[in-house]
Amino acid sequence: MSAIRGAVIWMTGLSGAGKSTLADALHQRLKEAGHASIVLDGDVLRRGLTAGLGFTPEDRAENLRRVAHVAALFMQQGFIAIAAVISPAHEHRRMAREIIGDGFVEVFVNAPLTVCEGRDVKGLYARARRGEIPHFTGISGPFDVPLDPDVMIETDRVSIEEAVDRLLVHLTAMGCLPRESGLGKPRLAK
Amino acid sequence: MSAIRGAVIWMTGLSGAGKSTLADALHQRLKEAGHASIVLDGDVLRRGLTAGLGFTPEDRAENLRRVAHVAALFMQQGFIAIAAVISPAHEHRRMAREIIGDGFVEVFVNAPLTVCEGRDVKGLYARARRGEIPHFTGISGPFDVPLDPDVMIETDRVSIEEAVDRLLVHLTAMGCLPRESGLGKPRLAK
Repeated sequence: MSAIRGAVIWMTGLSGAGKSTLADALHQRLKEAGHASIVLDGDVLRRGLTAGLGFTPEDRAENLRRVAHVAALFMQQGFIAIAAVISPAHEHRRMAREIIGDGFVEVFVNAPLTVCEGRDVKGLYARARRGEIPHFTGISGPFDVPLDPDVMIETDRVSIEEAVDRLLVHLTAMGCLPRESGLGKPRLAK
Repeated sequence: MSAIRGAVIWMTGLSGAGKSTLADALHQRLKEAGHASIVLDGDVLRRGLTAGLGFTPEDRAENLRRVAHVAALFMQQGFIAIAAVISPAHEHRRMAREIIGDGFVEVFVNAPLTVCEGRDVKGLYARARRGEIPHFTGISGPFDVPLDPDVMIETDRVSIEEAVDRLLVHLTAMGCLPRESGLGKPRLAK
């Protein structure tokens, strides 16, 4: 029932870019197909494993270090572990890749800042603009645009379904999903 | 293939009491039977997830807090997560139980200090006696004897095979293993 081999889908991108939504959709599709997967959502983990850490550069790095180690543990068990974490710095992604090793997939969940700010689901951008949130990525903190991600998903141009399809194709090519499952085949246009 | 419901086997006890050995044996037996399980060994995790933490009371508590959260994540995925961690204080076990909730099984891996010190596989007791290791449980640091563990295994009196059998019986009674597997049935004496 588990994947042939595990992987870590490391979703990086601005707040509001659609990481959690895409992570949940991918997880759901894998689950329906009987593949072991888990979503490691940065915001959720901050209530447990990484509680007590803030958003300073040091705390962010430590937060992501722990997420990477947990993701690696699940990958080693054959899971597709889906990390939904802003991970704004090149250094963060480099560290995660190093901890996780083979099986690490950097996915840039990309939407323009204006789009993310327009969505502002949690009202965080408005607060950050008012100067209430220091180190808020894109407003009061930097975001290093990934230079060579394994997959880029432009969430303002691609539907969630298409985005999930592209990730499944990638996972199939990596040998994480059986080719005969049909999961990793691009769907015919409707 | 995974367990009916997950659980955390939290093995507490002195260094040298046999936690890792018992954890590996239980894991092996569960694996052979096709049940998802993972060993979370305190010593191993200190190279990754909990790297940088020492053995002061504060660091130990933080170490065990993280182990408990990771164990809970695996339990929620249907795993039997086996934590092999000294966890010397009542407070540590109480915290782990609170984080993990239903499914937490406190297993006291019990051997007299003299026996553990006699084994001294890693030479740590000798070093602790020479005053080289502060906060070494049983020598230069306290160990609160568990007052009401769910299972107690006296490793100087019971074989590993018997000990594993007892844990499987407990897991079966909890509904974590199917009764028809025969895994949780005490073996006939040979």
